[in-house]
Amino acid sequence: MAKCKTRRLGILTAGGDCPGLNAAIRSVGKAALGTYAMEVVGIPDGFAGLIENRWRLLGMPDLSGILAQGGTLLRTSRVKPDKYELADGRVTDMTGAAAESYKNMALDCLVCLGGGGTQKNAMNLMKKGGMNVITLPKTIDNDIWGTDVCFGFDTAVNIATEAIDRLHSTADSHRRIMVLELMGNKTGWLALAAGIAGGADAILIPEIPYDMEAVAESIRERDRRGKRFSIVAVAEGARPAKGTISGDDVQDADETHHVATQVGRRLENLTGIEARVTVLGHVQRGGSPTPTDRILATRLGTAAADALAAGTYGVLIAARGDTWEAVPLADVAGKRRFVPLDHDMVTSARRIGTCMGDE
Amino acid sequence: MAKCKTRRLGILTAGGDCPGLNAAIRSVGKAALGTYAMEVVGIPDGFAGLIENRWRLLGMPDLSGILAQGGTLLRTSRVKPDKYELADGRVTDMTGAAAESYKNMALDCLVCLGGGGTQKNAMNLMKKGGMNVITLPKTIDNDIWGTDVCFGFDTAVNIATEAIDRLHSTADSHRRIMVLELMGNKTGWLALAAGIAGGADAILIPEIPYDMEAVAESIRERDRRGKRFSIVAVAEGARPAKGTISGDDVQDADETHHVATQVGRRLENLTGIEARVTVLGHVQRGGSPTPTDRILATRLGTAAADALAAGTYGVLIAARGDTWEAVPLADVAGKRRFVPLDHDMVTSARRIGTCMGDE
Amino acid sequence: MAKCKTRRLGILTAGGDCPGLNAAIRSVGKAALGTYAMEVVGIPDGFAGLIENRWRLLGMPDLSGILAQGGTLLRTSRVKPDKYELADGRVTDMTGAAAESYKNMALDCLVCLGGGGTQKNAMNLMKKGGMNVITLPKTIDNDIWGTDVCFGFDTAVNIATEAIDRLHSTADSHRRIMVLELMGNKTGWLALAAGIAGGADAILIPEIPYDMEAVAESIRERDRRGKRFSIVAVAEGARPAKGTISGDDVQDADETHHVATQVGRRLENLTGIEARVTVLGHVQRGGSPTPTDRILATRLGTAAADALAAGTYGVLIAARGDTWEAVPLADVAGKRRFVPLDHDMVTSARRIGTCMGDE
Amino acid sequence: MAKCKTRRLGILTAGGDCPGLNAAIRSVGKAALGTYAMEVVGIPDGFAGLIENRWRLLGMPDLSGILAQGGTLLRTSRVKPDKYELADGRVTDMTGAAAESYKNMALDCLVCLGGGGTQKNAMNLMKKGGMNVITLPKTIDNDIWGTDVCFGFDTAVNIATEAIDRLHSTADSHRRIMVLELMGNKTGWLALAAGIAGGADAILIPEIPYDMEAVAESIRERDRRGKRFSIVAVAEGARPAKGTISGDDVQDADETHHVATQVGRRLENLTGIEARVTVLGHVQRGGSPTPTDRILATRLGTAAADALAAGTYGVLIAARGDTWEAVPLADVAGKRRFVPLDHDMVTSARRIGTCMGDE
Repeated sequence: MAKCKTRRLGILTAGGDCPGLNAAIRSVGKAALGTYAMEVVGIPDGFAGLIENRWRLLGMPDLSGILAQGGTLLRTSRVKPDKYELADGRVTDMTGAAAESYKNMALDCLVCLGGGGTQKNAMNLMKKGGMNVITLPKTIDNDIWGTDVCFGFDTAVNIATEAIDRLHSTADSHRRIMVLELMGNKTGWLALAAGIAGGADAILIPEIPYDMEAVAESIRERDRRGKRFSIVAVAEGARPAKGTISGDDVQDADETHHVATQVGRRLENLTGIEARVTVLGHVQRGGSPTPTDRILATRLGTAAADALAAGTYGVLIAARGDTWEAVPLADVAGKRRFVPLDHDMVTSARRIGTCMGDE
Repeated sequence: MAKCKTRRLGILTAGGDCPGLNAAIRSVGKAALGTYAMEVVGIPDGFAGLIENRWRLLGMPDLSGILAQGGTLLRTSRVKPDKYELADGRVTDMTGAAAESYKNMALDCLVCLGGGGTQKNAMNLMKKGGMNVITLPKTIDNDIWGTDVCFGFDTAVNIATEAIDRLHSTADSHRRIMVLELMGNKTGWLALAAGIAGGADAILIPEIPYDMEAVAESIRERDRRGKRFSIVAVAEGARPAKGTISGDDVQDADETHHVATQVGRRLENLTGIEARVTVLGHVQRGGSPTPTDRILATRLGTAAADALAAGTYGVLIAARGDTWEAVPLADVAGKRRFVPLDHDMVTSARRIGTCMGDE
Repeated sequence: MAKCKTRRLGILTAGGDCPGLNAAIRSVGKAALGTYAMEVVGIPDGFAGLIENRWRLLGMPDLSGILAQGGTLLRTSRVKPDKYELADGRVTDMTGAAAESYKNMALDCLVCLGGGGTQKNAMNLMKKGGMNVITLPKTIDNDIWGTDVCFGFDTAVNIATEAIDRLHSTADSHRRIMVLELMGNKTGWLALAAGIAGGADAILIPEIPYDMEAVAESIRERDRRGKRFSIVAVAEGARPAKGTISGDDVQDADETHHVATQVGRRLENLTGIEARVTVLGHVQRGGSPTPTDRILATRLGTAAADALAAGTYGVLIAARGDTWEAVPLADVAGKRRFVPLDHDMVTSARRIGTCMGDE
Repeated sequence: MAKCKTRRLGILTAGGDCPGLNAAIRSVGKAALGTYAMEVVGIPDGFAGLIENRWRLLGMPDLSGILAQGGTLLRTSRVKPDKYELADGRVTDMTGAAAESYKNMALDCLVCLGGGGTQKNAMNLMKKGGMNVITLPKTIDNDIWGTDVCFGFDTAVNIATEAIDRLHSTADSHRRIMVLELMGNKTGWLALAAGIAGGADAILIPEIPYDMEAVAESIRERDRRGKRFSIVAVAEGARPAKGTISGDDVQDADETHHVATQVGRRLENLTGIEARVTVLGHVQRGGSPTPTDRILATRLGTAAADALAAGTYGVLIAARGDTWEAVPLADVAGKRRFVPLDHDMVTSARRIGTCMGDE
């Protein structure tokens, strides 16, 4: 602790909101205030608040009673310091203004809670802005490089699984294909986990481009065995394999035509079985975090305070087994963690007969 | 009990599936088998099973462990006896075939669990088919005439409210309008109840045609008072008031363009605040019933057995306060129960400042 | 509205806490502030705050974001104005001090949210203290006279039913009697509702004194039919029928020896089947209210504001069907609403074969 | 796969039941039947069924629709092959009979799903009975040696956390100490995880013997800072530090006097603040598994089938990061996994100011 010169930390939440942010803020703050006797500065609205030099000191009472609450008490925004949009629409680099605020707030370190984009922004603030930064991995997409898992993910898996559970009973009562589109951005973590947990019959993820005929055949095969219904979990980023693209699949770029809508229409045509499509949407990122996410956010939050106290900057606090690791931002920023094709969940799903879209 | 000549009842579930059907089947069956020593015949796939003379005897073990399960063990279909679609696509009246099956199964009474359409079909079987029928009111839309409430409704309200709760935390973190489309067919019961329970800022229901400018103004007013977000709950049957129809509202008959999509787009234009739309879809009708729905389904189920034992036929078993009433099907069939404009929920919502779309 | 002279209302929550209190505070307050332009005074810690003249004005921001929160932002206490315990242990009548505070706060009416005891206290403040009072019925016991139902009850039924659901799976895996003790004070509403909703095999409530041998026989009968387990839901106020009291039942007045413990021990002895006892305890009265409770609390809250605006005082705002009624406190205070022996839930439970303890 | 000679596997569930057993049975079975074309024999009632030579073939339909169900379709018992209790009460070694059944069922391998005791029993069947065995780690106590985590644990943490959440709102409304006793056998995993997730103010686990005065002081300190309530999560195995044992702590061996009762009584005496005790009991081990537990059970289940296909016997299929490992039973049986005193969860809890009982 002799090396600990840091006395004032700033904290902000950036990017899409996600369950567990308040738990992490509380954890960083309580450890900093209570264990390390630091001051804690809350910066509202993500990087927007930093650039615009808005902040307030946070005390213990501000951190009380928020563990189980969804959202973020600091609110968030998608503003990027190096691509700040001015009122007149022009885009400019405000890294300098951010650095100015950092000095103005007399910070020793800035803790940024965010997803993949936030890692890049934090890296930029460190490199160009000369700030000390530490990041925490939050995203329901679970796609941040360098960490085993991100907080927010477990909650999203729970919400998505509950939706599949509900579709099961309604599908079972009729003869139907139920297609459920889940979030995940360009990766399949959420659809894969919820698909396995909900017992989906087919799971389509971006990492395994799908052959619609293969999916249709797996559903026909179920139908022949007397299974009246099939559940298809589709990641929002899922795409057809090249050789299997048909006019139908690509014709429509309208934002209301989700990939699940296309999948449903094609499956209905190919199998002759009625298909219903649900796009679960924003309910996946809201609400109270699961215990797993609360524990993860708490663990990583105190780890951030530990790293800060030790003067370890420029790192992502990553979950590693049942402990944590400080991973240099340079190794993290700009990369995306995809589902490995030989991941245990993929193998396991195949073993129990789940169609992964490719066979 | 001396009047009780009925010895064999048939039971079927028709229309869309809905939580509480298994609880009701269990209740009718256990009372009939245990209390009244009747035989119970389960008919699969709604009226399709009746027409096609498919059935099996149900015993106590068949009724065990199903109270909390979603869906229906008898499965369901939307087949109508008087408009039966043949394999070649022709539509024909199969009421006669249904009556034949009824005799074949040696039934004394047919208990039909269903929504508004089922009331009509049951009435037809009674009038044209000469059968003894009793119906139970199930629907998440809560729109059956003659009963205080329908089972399935409370569960749907719970699911929809949980969705609004989740949207709250995500809306609060950003500056946004969140529009959520809920089911309810041509009525607003579900959107109204969930809207109040979830604290929606505006609730749009078919019974109160909406003026989009009024809704936009209520959101602008919130924005002026520093409320960064607004939640709008929209019933799938909600429609604009005549004077307020614009091209935008009616241009698009595509089934993927939900009313919520239109509402979201218009509000974004009128307020300049970003809007996000979620269509909750089929998850609203699946899953384990709430305790309230289980109790209601159980109460009405034993009441059906009581009515049957007393030889009271041609009736809907309606919930009336904390007891029940046998309402003649002739008073029920073909009517729809809308939300009265002076209903306590409407008045109460207005009192706390909820925009109901008309002012 | 011409009669409406009331401009300032006080609000307090008294007795045990219960889900829905914040929803009701929000509803009374928003209607009073927004619709009727009254002032709203929040009084903390129940009647203690009133006696001690503690209060603060509540504005719209105080009422925001609390709809779904458990507990009560005003906190509560079990203090009674006419039996106030002084620091030295003496008990004295502080009705006069309460009346003084009422004048000091310049109140036109005091809205009291509470259970059976609160009705009495409010009646006393009206009669002896000369105050205008309106009460709202909150209690998980559901035992307030004059109202169809109380808010908090539905949430407690949900929690208790979930517990029974969980016990089902564990009981089913072993060969066991699972006894679950539920709250309800001197009435059986909670055990009855949760028992039906959870599919309990026996339900013991105070209104139907139990014959332990009858309960044991119903369990033996299940065992003979191959049912390996039985679930017994016991209200905390359940008592044996006179003729059936044995030494075992009454020997132990220790607070840790709950009625469920006695029931479990006796059933184990009488049936030879292993019994496990769970006393659910305080988790039954906490947490976020169900949608049903939120709607009820909201409806009754705005009704209280309506009554107040109309100058209707000295009343309980009672739920009556899907509307409400102002019932004179004189008709309510000092009475307790028991489960009628011919209540639809009792009849229905018997019809499906549930042992109610008496046969 | 050339080495794969195994064609028939038996499967049984032993010890206390636990969420995820059905998910694991389904997974082992589907992989064995579908991927490896083996036969699957279901053995009911744990080792009792094995000894008594009871079994039936399981097909795909037996494994359908059980993923989300609590309990175990094979049921369970606490019978031990080497300490089998005869009808006359004598205890005898039935390992020989078990081996006989194994041959009779023509098994190539026996898959045992169970906790710590099951590892020992399986080891014995391997060593003395000469059987091929594979085990899967299930227990809500999370105390099996050799695996990162056990299925059932996450579900129990969820149930326990929900209870703490509920207690928070009720504690906050009054001025109280709420003591909650959680399961965990001789370890503190469950209390620690749920305590962190629920935001308990003190967490008492067996691995850290508690000093009641230290706990009381942490509560007094909260009280001085204006925190009106404190939540204490106590593992059922928690014990006082030697120097701090008082008469009160040890006087009572009655099974109804739980550790939480003692803790509550002592804290009330030491702090003068009212304490309420809840013993959550068997609800912690029942009900539908969480998505996390379903995924874990599914992954380990297919891994068991993989190990079996590869002829890898005498192992526990352990969770290791996001994959699995076959750990020799000899390294696992007879050991218990305790919470390490420097575990990340312990450190993190201390950092945010949680009293761990020792300071």
